[in-house]
Amino acid sequence: MRWLKFTAAGKTSWGLVEGDKVVTVSGDPFGEWQRDAQTHALKDVKIELPLIPRTFYCVGLNYLKHLKEAADKAGTVPNVPDRPEIGYRAQNALIAHDEDVVIPATATEKIHYEGELAVVIGKKAKHLTEANAMSCVFGYTIGNDVSERTWQKADRGLWRSKNADTFKPMGPWIETDVDLDKMETTIRVNGKRTGHFHTNDMIFGVVPFIVELTKYFTLWPGDVIWMGTDGASPDIKAGDVVEIDITGIGTLRNKFVAEKR
Amino acid sequence: MRWLKFTAAGKTSWGLVEGDKVVTVSGDPFGEWQRDAQTHALKDVKIELPLIPRTFYCVGLNYLKHLKEAADKAGTVPNVPDRPEIGYRAQNALIAHDEDVVIPATATEKIHYEGELAVVIGKKAKHLTEANAMSCVFGYTIGNDVSERTWQKADRGLWRSKNADTFKPMGPWIETDVDLDKMETTIRVNGKRTGHFHTNDMIFGVVPFIVELTKYFTLWPGDVIWMGTDGASPDIKAGDVVEIDITGIGTLRNKFVAEKR
Repeated sequence: MRWLKFTAAGKTSWGLVEGDKVVTVSGDPFGEWQRDAQTHALKDVKIELPLIPRTFYCVGLNYLKHLKEAADKAGTVPNVPDRPEIGYRAQNALIAHDEDVVIPATATEKIHYEGELAVVIGKKAKHLTEANAMSCVFGYTIGNDVSERTWQKADRGLWRSKNADTFKPMGPWIETDVDLDKMETTIRVNGKRTGHFHTNDMIFGVVPFIVELTKYFTLWPGDVIWMGTDGASPDIKAGDVVEIDITGIGTLRNKFVAEKR
Repeated sequence: MRWLKFTAAGKTSWGLVEGDKVVTVSGDPFGEWQRDAQTHALKDVKIELPLIPRTFYCVGLNYLKHLKEAADKAGTVPNVPDRPEIGYRAQNALIAHDEDVVIPATATEKIHYEGELAVVIGKKAKHLTEANAMSCVFGYTIGNDVSERTWQKADRGLWRSKNADTFKPMGPWIETDVDLDKMETTIRVNGKRTGHFHTNDMIFGVVPFIVELTKYFTLWPGDVIWMGTDGASPDIKAGDVVEIDITGIGTLRNKFVAEKR
């Protein structure tokens, strides 16, 4: 199933995408729900951010090429993680599919995309095991972990480099039925392919991360875990359109614009 | 005004603390509200977590003694921040006044408290200035930034060292009328004073932080900014009760217990 949060005729609700139609749903996917009689053409609705997570987890370094490129730029040897460790992103930065990423007036030209698989949690969970880790997963969406690399180097931590308003596009919807091993992530800038990797070529995959996180953390319905990215990005400038495509989910598309002040 | 989230007779709502009574309020402090006729004795209600912030901001190093003690332990020279920079904490870790901090079964004995002033945002705000920064502040509460120091040294980032379930007590209520310059933070373990500092002796205070954050971030009603701590903590063990008292707000009290597995 493909769950879409959308607005039509001034009303925001959940729906199910079926072909080029959206079937309106009463309730929400994490609780009670039922299909309504009403449908809309997908092209006519405003796609909304699927959810604001209670806690917004994000893996920093989880693919070998990305690690090596980061180390090469820093003039260091890649330090491959020996266990799954997590970071956080900030809810203020989330925007929906087709909403604009606003490049802050004070940012440098080092604006990069990072195309990521985002795991959406559906059930409250703690102390899961390898055998039952997937039982808390509701589905998958796509994230763009937009980054300002000059700030990333200059600052203590990742506060503004990763979390400035609009730096976290997520969507367009949540797909519940995927085959992780068959998925490919493809990134395009203005229609031209600039990145590609096998989505599940992670150093630590979804199961090891859920097992490790739930040793310490209760996962809640609506929490998201962004799984990291591979490769590197060219510098993105105002006017560029970035598309992140993941097989079986769809395409997250956002235009980058300059902040007007 | 002193805003309390509480449960009485199975119903959770907002209220106003007036002396030893709680006046029930309909609505919530960030929107429309009105006083109800119903009152309860403060001692008879269950104090709840005041709120779950949309984004949970926390300052890492904001007092000189704490910086110096951290540097001494690491065998380095204190690196005093030259500008306000922020970090994040995770919503899963929040608990209320009088709820138990559960020390994970795999933690070491290096469990420390950090008593902190927590700023509660009341209005959506961006690009504030020194002159109008305080206009977005609703009030203040108290946070205990519980930390596992062995994990803090061993891990990439602060994920489990600072954000394990129950590691972020916050409360007991939100006080809207305070005089920052007159406030003192006092910490007691099992009734014995173990820490004390002037609450507003920060390297960067509330105004510079709000000015800097709102250059990049939209603050939302219910967001919190924990302002950091001074001094050091003894090792806290199961059975200990930690109280953090801030003049004009009140006392946040939590017992530490061992995880049962």
